[in-house]
Amino acid sequence: MANPVLVEVTRGNLVESRHRGMVVAVDGDGKVVFSQGDIDAAVFPRSACKAMQGLPLIESGAADAYGFGAKELALACSSHSGEPEHVRLAASMLAAAGLDESVLECGAHWSFDQPVLIDQVRSLDRPSALHNNCSGKHAGFVCAACHGGTALKGYVRYEHPVQAEIRGVMEDLTGAALGTDNCGTDGCSIPTYAVPLKSLAHGFAKMATGTSLAPERARASRRLIEACMAEPFFVAGTKRACTRLMKMAPGRIFAKTGAEGVFCAAIPEKGIAIALKCEDGTTRAAESMVAATLARFFANEPAVHGALMAMANHSMSNWNGIHVGDVRVTDAFAA
Amino acid sequence: MANPVLVEVTRGNLVESRHRGMVVAVDGDGKVVFSQGDIDAAVFPRSACKAMQGLPLIESGAADAYGFGAKELALACSSHSGEPEHVRLAASMLAAAGLDESVLECGAHWSFDQPVLIDQVRSLDRPSALHNNCSGKHAGFVCAACHGGTALKGYVRYEHPVQAEIRGVMEDLTGAALGTDNCGTDGCSIPTYAVPLKSLAHGFAKMATGTSLAPERARASRRLIEACMAEPFFVAGTKRACTRLMKMAPGRIFAKTGAEGVFCAAIPEKGIAIALKCEDGTTRAAESMVAATLARFFANEPAVHGALMAMANHSMSNWNGIHVGDVRVTDAFAA
Repeated sequence: MANPVLVEVTRGNLVESRHRGMVVAVDGDGKVVFSQGDIDAAVFPRSACKAMQGLPLIESGAADAYGFGAKELALACSSHSGEPEHVRLAASMLAAAGLDESVLECGAHWSFDQPVLIDQVRSLDRPSALHNNCSGKHAGFVCAACHGGTALKGYVRYEHPVQAEIRGVMEDLTGAALGTDNCGTDGCSIPTYAVPLKSLAHGFAKMATGTSLAPERARASRRLIEACMAEPFFVAGTKRACTRLMKMAPGRIFAKTGAEGVFCAAIPEKGIAIALKCEDGTTRAAESMVAATLARFFANEPAVHGALMAMANHSMSNWNGIHVGDVRVTDAFAA
Repeated sequence: MANPVLVEVTRGNLVESRHRGMVVAVDGDGKVVFSQGDIDAAVFPRSACKAMQGLPLIESGAADAYGFGAKELALACSSHSGEPEHVRLAASMLAAAGLDESVLECGAHWSFDQPVLIDQVRSLDRPSALHNNCSGKHAGFVCAACHGGTALKGYVRYEHPVQAEIRGVMEDLTGAALGTDNCGTDGCSIPTYAVPLKSLAHGFAKMATGTSLAPERARASRRLIEACMAEPFFVAGTKRACTRLMKMAPGRIFAKTGAEGVFCAAIPEKGIAIALKCEDGTTRAAESMVAATLARFFANEPAVHGALMAMANHSMSNWNGIHVGDVRVTDAFAA
């Protein structure tokens, strides 16, 4: 059966485009409290699971050894826009371990964010690996490896101890088996593993609540999620969805996007985590979906609920600033 | 019933994202020769119908009065990338009528194409209306109005004679009623009208064959389509899908994209036209769909068929040039 239409894009009085997808919210025990679509389908979490991939940085002791605070931990979980503050902080994380950008294996690209791209073009000949949206995560990988005395070269490869350790962490969190069968290569060259959407949500619910985790992992999870909520700019950037969502209820909402229409989120105080995917991989729809799903859990707080629904349902203007249509979630979120 | 999945995006051994949509190919009489999905659904053609909107430029006598050749006519039907040749030609079209960019009401934006955007940022403080992807179409509008002695101001508005004339042309071509009920505002501020996908295809089939058209309109249609096929760079730009498609079989394929996953195409020598929409509005999928649909009509020409299918099914690489997955059409196109 087809996944339901979760987001509509209108023009004039008509619906112009439709986005289908699947959404699930679970508690710390993995109990489903809200769902739409096929939540058992295997989904590549892509960058939405960066907080899971960041755990070895803390658990290895590297974060403390290098004096990393909330900003560095947030950047290790980020898909940043490549703004100067992001680039400088990624460089300083590497410098703390006596390294520089030459060890990064993520590749280089211009910012995905147009205003940032324009600033970059005006100040750079070309972007470096530090400008890659994943440079903070990769800095975290090499810092953990460096602290542990592991050879850095090839740290993006499936067989490397860095990726093997991440695989173990993610199996513990999601309860799903990870291996070559469900492995793909991510944009930044590390492995990404397709897991059932429900398992991905459960992994984040464990991180947010500590349920079923060893004490050390529960503490590291809480520290990472709190760092992201404390420094939302370093998880994404100016006007970006993750940053905006976490600013709507400071210290209370964790949210992280991934390529191809994935979003993960958690509300630690409510013991809830969310995972979703827009079937067609479109970011605009995933952003509306995550905002509307989060809003369900703030029904009694009009300010937060209103801010979230204003992100879920918003108007679109053209080059002359004329209102041309809206992006809006469907009744699937009202149920 | 849900529209079928027409394009899949893979990663590793798995399908990561899916695009649904509707496609129709018709002959000059409107007979359906291939279809998938709900082809009676109303679709905003957006920029895919620019060749229809360009007919008054010829029929009014303005194109001849101002000495426009194939390049200018192609630009009048274009969604160009804002490359220097596009911008200069749009300016020269206006100059032929004694006008300049100050009359354009399309708004300004940086190029959607990253390499062009980077060149623009390095040479401009900000883009002008001439850089808008629709500037050639708008230059055509104001040239037609100027030649006809119509006041230019407000030429983008529903009530203006320029838009009223276009409405009449599009009703003649598509056979669909156009009015405020099915009208939206396009990115460049002119009206766009939702019409059944099948009617849109039939309109292009009439343009490509002349069937059921008054002789003057049939001649103008042929001239516009031949101009686009002769000057494909001026319909889009470097590496753009429309340009690439028309270069695969020079003088034999017409193709024009529109925002939100629309594509229209024609093969005049075969008397066939195509209209399609990706349900979720994604360009990557619409490009694969149009290439695969066109390929059906070149089964006996391996070189053209192969080039089209290489566009329909292609690999994706990451920032390090590693193959990460593929975009591919589904069996829906094999039927």
